[in-house]
Amino acid sequence: MTSKRDAHSVALGAGREFDAIRLLLERWGVRATGIGDDAAVLDLPRGDSLVASVDAAVEGIHFERDWLTPREIGYRAVAAALSDLAAMAARPVGVLIALGLPDDWHNDLEGIGDGIGDAVDYAGTRIAGGNISVTRLLSITTTVLGSVYAPLRRDALRAGDTLYVTGRLGGPRAAIRELRAGRVATPVYRERFARPRPRLREALWLADRGATSAIDISDGLVADLGHLTAASGKLSIEVELSRLPRIDALEPLDAAASGEEYELIVGAPQTIDTQLFERTFGLTLTAIGTAGASGDGVMLHLNGERVANPGGYDHLSL
Amino acid sequence: MTSKRDAHSVALGAGREFDAIRLLLERWGVRATGIGDDAAVLDLPRGDSLVASVDAAVEGIHFERDWLTPREIGYRAVAAALSDLAAMAARPVGVLIALGLPDDWHNDLEGIGDGIGDAVDYAGTRIAGGNISVTRLLSITTTVLGSVYAPLRRDALRAGDTLYVTGRLGGPRAAIRELRAGRVATPVYRERFARPRPRLREALWLADRGATSAIDISDGLVADLGHLTAASGKLSIEVELSRLPRIDALEPLDAAASGEEYELIVGAPQTIDTQLFERTFGLTLTAIGTAGASGDGVMLHLNGERVANPGGYDHLSL
Repeated sequence: MTSKRDAHSVALGAGREFDAIRLLLERWGVRATGIGDDAAVLDLPRGDSLVASVDAAVEGIHFERDWLTPREIGYRAVAAALSDLAAMAARPVGVLIALGLPDDWHNDLEGIGDGIGDAVDYAGTRIAGGNISVTRLLSITTTVLGSVYAPLRRDALRAGDTLYVTGRLGGPRAAIRELRAGRVATPVYRERFARPRPRLREALWLADRGATSAIDISDGLVADLGHLTAASGKLSIEVELSRLPRIDALEPLDAAASGEEYELIVGAPQTIDTQLFERTFGLTLTAIGTAGASGDGVMLHLNGERVANPGGYDHLSL
Repeated sequence: MTSKRDAHSVALGAGREFDAIRLLLERWGVRATGIGDDAAVLDLPRGDSLVASVDAAVEGIHFERDWLTPREIGYRAVAAALSDLAAMAARPVGVLIALGLPDDWHNDLEGIGDGIGDAVDYAGTRIAGGNISVTRLLSITTTVLGSVYAPLRRDALRAGDTLYVTGRLGGPRAAIRELRAGRVATPVYRERFARPRPRLREALWLADRGATSAIDISDGLVADLGHLTAASGKLSIEVELSRLPRIDALEPLDAAASGEEYELIVGAPQTIDTQLFERTFGLTLTAIGTAGASGDGVMLHLNGERVANPGGYDHLSL
């Protein structure tokens, strides 16, 4: 978010881009101090590694304009990106925001900026840089930077590890189903879709208590368990779906397929005190199974009966 | 560039996105190893700070499809972003690429990927992460990560410092003028537009020899000198335009206004050996003036006559 602009963008309204940058910097205040050089300079704790990831939220693909307020759109884009830091048990050190801003979104910029600020506040981090381009569809591309000493990894799951999941699943899928049908989303579902919480503090707590592997749920529990078992060398895990923590009385298969949850799946070779977790964070932590060595991937049961693995995503997708 | 995808993108062709990721990872080879977790883990040299910046190149705004090959488009987007690291005298540690890929660009993905790889090779760095979304216009959003012990800063210019510029200016502006007129661009101009060189090694050399402030030329020499003098507390600088290093016989005012050069302006309190620089890099280094304390900003002369400051950018813009 420097004061420089691209040579070609002038003809297309660089004055407006400057105004947009000014407006965002005003709304962000101290959350975006230190901007103005060619790049931001950030310090990591001595001995820590840098963790970095980039994620894009594009209108019409990742959200529909009439589903969310501008503030929720800004919040959600950045919160989803921060979830990748949680999945590594990394502490955020800053985010960079590349905004693709169509003309017809210009009046919503304050709301979008405030939502981005909300997510940055929630994570206790700062905005370290940005970029605004004129585009045809709104897009928010977020780079998250974090620091970590001992990251949780997808490939660190071992046979015998217990798998845990944070929170209650199903809300985002249920909300999107209602919204797609043109209905008003049930508030408890809508909240989980519009305001996902990157489990940053929870991840640090879990890593401190013996978790070694993790993934965040963006594709759905079954699909992401599949990624985790595959990355770790073709392990297996059996899941009894009736025990999945769910919002309200949502169907187990719906909860298992609900994406964009941004809850965490962690694997740990030792038992984690789920009640202490719950008292600490006001959030459930549920043991959902044990990793096995059979290489069969994710095997699902419902009330003791084997049910077909939905094949992850395409079948059960939203 | 993880194997995860967004819940909503399935309906719009997540299979294609997976194919695109696979194709890019194949072409990038060892330049993109270590991808596959929720985020990349990178190590910085002990004692160094992290430097980060994000930059977007969007079709129709930052380039026209028929002006450049897909390979040049990929190269140029990443090279331009890397130039922000050069302006801080930072060493690249990795780049993250968020690609907005329309259907009608799908067949050009190999070329785009190869161009991104070219820029990464030129900088001696690696691709540490990425993201692909379906969009309506091609966009390449690049986050550059670097490490630095003593960054060059925009606000470090002092009265009495000599200002130097690398290379010869004017090529990109001349090329774009020809291209806009529907003509074939003169090769020497086109090369400067299509294949800008981020001056990473040059910046380290200059910082080692006493440079303390820097900015890269993206808006044009006059505009970027203005940013530098303003950031450093309202200094002044007088520039004799006839002495500007130019490509061919380009007009001095054209060279002064040419943007997207990605050459460096550096300020130094001591004299830098321009001939040694030239022998080392095969590139000119030219003293263009001395910073003054008058707070008058950038004052231009042509053959000894004061000429109006074009006001930076809007007036002289491409």
